Amino acid sequence: MKKLWNLELRDFPADRLTEKESDRIGEIAKQCRAWAVTMTTVANSGHPAGSLSSMEMYLLTYAVANVTPENWRELDRDFVVISHGHTSPGAYAALAAHGFFPPEEAMAHFRQAGSPFQGHVERQVPGIDWGSGNLGQGLSAGVGYAMACRARGVSHNVFVLMSDGEQVKGQIAEARRMAAKEKLANLLVLLDYNHIQISGRIEEIMPSDLHGLWKTDGWEVLECDGQDPAALYHAMAVARKSAKPAVVFCRNTMGRGVSFMENLPDYHGKAAAGKDYEKAMEELGVSPRLAEEALLRRKSGIPAAGKEPGHGKILLDTGTPKSFGTEIKTDNRSAFGKALEDVGRLNYDRAGQTPLLVFDCDLAGSVKTDGFARSCPNWFKEMGIQEHSTATVAGAASCGGVVSLWADFGVFGLDEVYNQQRLNDINGTNLKVALTHVGLDVGEDGMTHQCIDYVGLFRNTFGWKLIVPADPNQTDRATRWAIRTPGNICLAMGRSKLPVLADERGVPLFGEGYEFRYGKADVIREGKDGTIFCMGQMAHGALKAWEKLVETGIRPLLLHVSCPLEIDDEAVKAAVRTGAVLTVEDHHSRTGLGSVIGMRLAEGGEAVRFRAMGVHRYGDSGASEDVITRMGLGSEDLFRAFRTLLNR
Amino acid sequence: MKKLWNLELRDFPADRLTEKESDRIGEIAKQCRAWAVTMTTVANSGHPAGSLSSMEMYLLTYAVANVTPENWRELDRDFVVISHGHTSPGAYAALAAHGFFPPEEAMAHFRQAGSPFQGHVERQVPGIDWGSGNLGQGLSAGVGYAMACRARGVSHNVFVLMSDGEQVKGQIAEARRMAAKEKLANLLVLLDYNHIQISGRIEEIMPSDLHGLWKTDGWEVLECDGQDPAALYHAMAVARKSAKPAVVFCRNTMGRGVSFMENLPDYHGKAAAGKDYEKAMEELGVSPRLAEEALLRRKSGIPAAGKEPGHGKILLDTGTPKSFGTEIKTDNRSAFGKALEDVGRLNYDRAGQTPLLVFDCDLAGSVKTDGFARSCPNWFKEMGIQEHSTATVAGAASCGGVVSLWADFGVFGLDEVYNQQRLNDINGTNLKVALTHVGLDVGEDGMTHQCIDYVGLFRNTFGWKLIVPADPNQTDRATRWAIRTPGNICLAMGRSKLPVLADERGVPLFGEGYEFRYGKADVIREGKDGTIFCMGQMAHGALKAWEKLVETGIRPLLLHVSCPLEIDDEAVKAAVRTGAVLTVEDHHSRTGLGSVIGMRLAEGGEAVRFRAMGVHRYGDSGASEDVITRMGLGSEDLFRAFRTLLNR
Repeated sequence: MKKLWNLELRDFPADRLTEKESDRIGEIAKQCRAWAVTMTTVANSGHPAGSLSSMEMYLLTYAVANVTPENWRELDRDFVVISHGHTSPGAYAALAAHGFFPPEEAMAHFRQAGSPFQGHVERQVPGIDWGSGNLGQGLSAGVGYAMACRARGVSHNVFVLMSDGEQVKGQIAEARRMAAKEKLANLLVLLDYNHIQISGRIEEIMPSDLHGLWKTDGWEVLECDGQDPAALYHAMAVARKSAKPAVVFCRNTMGRGVSFMENLPDYHGKAAAGKDYEKAMEELGVSPRLAEEALLRRKSGIPAAGKEPGHGKILLDTGTPKSFGTEIKTDNRSAFGKALEDVGRLNYDRAGQTPLLVFDCDLAGSVKTDGFARSCPNWFKEMGIQEHSTATVAGAASCGGVVSLWADFGVFGLDEVYNQQRLNDINGTNLKVALTHVGLDVGEDGMTHQCIDYVGLFRNTFGWKLIVPADPNQTDRATRWAIRTPGNICLAMGRSKLPVLADERGVPLFGEGYEFRYGKADVIREGKDGTIFCMGQMAHGALKAWEKLVETGIRPLLLHVSCPLEIDDEAVKAAVRTGAVLTVEDHHSRTGLGSVIGMRLAEGGEAVRFRAMGVHRYGDSGASEDVITRMGLGSEDLFRAFRTLLNR
Repeated sequence: MKKLWNLELRDFPADRLTEKESDRIGEIAKQCRAWAVTMTTVANSGHPAGSLSSMEMYLLTYAVANVTPENWRELDRDFVVISHGHTSPGAYAALAAHGFFPPEEAMAHFRQAGSPFQGHVERQVPGIDWGSGNLGQGLSAGVGYAMACRARGVSHNVFVLMSDGEQVKGQIAEARRMAAKEKLANLLVLLDYNHIQISGRIEEIMPSDLHGLWKTDGWEVLECDGQDPAALYHAMAVARKSAKPAVVFCRNTMGRGVSFMENLPDYHGKAAAGKDYEKAMEELGVSPRLAEEALLRRKSGIPAAGKEPGHGKILLDTGTPKSFGTEIKTDNRSAFGKALEDVGRLNYDRAGQTPLLVFDCDLAGSVKTDGFARSCPNWFKEMGIQEHSTATVAGAASCGGVVSLWADFGVFGLDEVYNQQRLNDINGTNLKVALTHVGLDVGEDGMTHQCIDYVGLFRNTFGWKLIVPADPNQTDRATRWAIRTPGNICLAMGRSKLPVLADERGVPLFGEGYEFRYGKADVIREGKDGTIFCMGQMAHGALKAWEKLVETGIRPLLLHVSCPLEIDDEAVKAAVRTGAVLTVEDHHSRTGLGSVIGMRLAEGGEAVRFRAMGVHRYGDSGASEDVITRMGLGSEDLFRAFRTLLNR
């Protein structure tokens, strides 16, 4: 592909540009500005002024970074994260100049339904390493990539481009501290310091001492004229040599290059039309026919989305399952922790293995990653009580050549960071999240700590897989499976010690010979007098209720659902045949297992007696067993409810 | 109620304590420490060491603050927010000393299922203004209370007590900046600076320059020995006089007063038992029989939860609805903005009216609160791109005597801050959230900006009400209803201009004579050949499909659901009678309207043909109509799908 860019600046061959180089970059930037403005005019939507503001930042980043159309799908290269994703026209123009795709394609199909050139940058576009647009996320993603490179023992550079309006987002402060703690000297931030956000000047919208904040959080802070190629290049070259992570405040002019867009919040999110567009092109020295041509091309079909870069080849030995006998009573989180530590030991310090980074937010002892931390100290990452940034860091790291696992309480690892997990899904990360203390089984912590919505939240995504194991044996197997299986996978566990589930002969159900298969429901007891579906720790209470029902001559089918987002047809069909379905969970009764099964029954169009038992108010603070009983979910309650359902 | 505290320090009668006063506080603190340790021992759970660390902070705050057992349920008083809610034993002990309830009650029933004394402080306990436990939230709540006082024209003090481990949470930085911008000099923060968090020393877990950060964000920073009553009282008295919001770093010893708990992370979350407990009581000079007595009492029944403080009397004139004729095409968000401005004008500058605070995160022009901002400048609060803190600030303000309304894009006002909205629910706030750009109707912004989960998220709470209006008329009425109706209410709207919905004679359906009733489904067209349920902006496509079906001789019942979390029985029964149900939404197909209806059908146990149409992958970036069509949700798709459902 022909590319406009014709200078060799990769990896900073010198500390300063020659005048000729600087002039040439000025010319290219002008051309790119015309492309960016044209994109928004053709789409009649988008953010031209910010794109013009960041243009030199984009052009020079893709010039010095070792990322090319050829190596972009591999992992041995530099990474570039764009945090202010709404300036996509600027990014697309710079990428086109550097030969990632023809500029005509971006101009024609920007913000056209079905095109990869979405309004905010997405990973379907060659050269884009992180889909953003929700502000405040990019620095965390950059930290994740940099930590992945560090863990892999490679020294690739990571560039993060940000806006100034987003600087007050708290997540950015968290990310700054992580970068400083991890001494990520290979991280370089360019900040588009144009002082303008949608509603006005940043100093008025939300005053803050930006330089002071970056310095206080331990960063090297530089500043330059960000639209003077020579000044920007030199600042970047100096920043690159810093022993600390560095940020360059780029003094930029919003809307630079188009007189009527300069310094006006108005053109933040408005395209130029008609005469205005012509005037813009005239000022940029480019023919206004660019838009017409693009509009014509826009009607001729939509380009297919490119293949997103993958996660690289994962080499991790997940060992052999550990079996717990029925004499053992332990908690699922301990079984998870032991399996994790086992996998860690098998791979740590072994050349060629994929690093497994385990993230913690000051709860390692409770979420049982402390064993792993002791065995694999360099793979254990303590992030402090900074969940938002941790979620994004862990997600992005998994796109940088490691496997990431983050363990936290349910309300912190999901409720608090739901949007970050949604964005990880959109970005196709390879993150494992181990949530402990889910459901009502949190011990005495009380309602603010009861994660009764983990099914209901993950159901809103399209990619997340969710596993709710019933006992320590299943937990061990699911943990190993999750670590070796690509994609975003959550393992959800309560806090209490649980008996090992066994069949009627006393043989462990999930022990020797059992293999975890995602989506398969588990038959705990065969039966035909109706069906009880249970989930996770409720399996034990359900089994007690089942035993009591059997004593009264009722023998239901008892099924455990470890994968509530993907229940197998066979199980649902078998349940329908029994004529009555009771679902039992210590999860919100309207959004979890009961809701999933209820909808399946409705879609099947068959008349079945159905009742969903679950959490119907915020829970109490007390011993888990008491909390569950007071919620009407004790085995006695299940027993009575099932008889009522059967009219017996 | 007899109280242990017998000094008069309310509102700082002097700048310094007398030696006698200081000694007396030392004695009281010792007694309170024994109560706090006993609570955790009796519950065999909880956080003793942090409670001991914060004890003087608690005792002195409730001493100087104008908050008493008598005035606590009113709004004309000071407010106290506890951010580190896990140190509840310390707070309960201090409240007991100040006469809010008998100490025996807290010692007996701490962390007992059904008792108000939850593991983390909750508003059911007298004296507790904000339920916390999820760290990093408290300062925002304090900012909210302080802003409410400011808006009401009263100068009550707001105290916030925090831990040092939570300081790195990004939300705290956001809240600091808001306090500085709003010049909340009546806000005083006490920081429990004991250097210890669960996993170790704060300097190791996540290094940060705490003093520097508070100063850089514009706060007055003081420091003192936080366990020396004289030093702490004096620092608080000085801080109170600061023209800026002020923080006092309280140099405290973790576990202070019990030798074997001092400075050890181990006792962060572990209770003392047996000999250890006896040793603790001995050191504190209190009989170890305290625990026995409490255990005895624990078995004698659980105290009822107190009534939470209400929102005070709301006086707001919500005017008369504005009707849009069928000749008008406008967007719901503009109808919302106009109604809001109308309500604002009717009440602004009118003595005795309840302030209506409208919060913005740099999107006023898009979410249409700009008119209100111009008409009621002092009630409009620009918070910058800091959604987490804004969610909590707005929620807490609504407990401080104002009505709060926050308007934002769906992904920012809900997805990004789901947990904050969950905690607002738990705290029983009176917050109105106007979400715009929900569903696929976000214009060209693309998938990161498509809030396709607002039903699926709010469904996980117990208190939130949700309204998805179908057209500008319904929006106007729902807006006024939400403002005058107590509780947390969300209004969800797309971006596009919509025609006014009319009946078959052309008379607007939601115009003159229509009154919004929460939970009532709207009959758009009568019919009996199956039923189409639609939601929000999809009503228009559904009506088009209906018209096409009528042309082919099929006349379904067409119902609009504006309140998907509470669908009336009548509507569901009517639909069941028609034998076939199609649901249509530009929301995730598994978690929204279709899922709610599906579950209702399943619970009804009747066989009905059922299909749920909705969003089944992340959406495209393009014109809303194109995005909807490409998702298979155009009116042609609905027409065909309904015929297929009927086998016709």
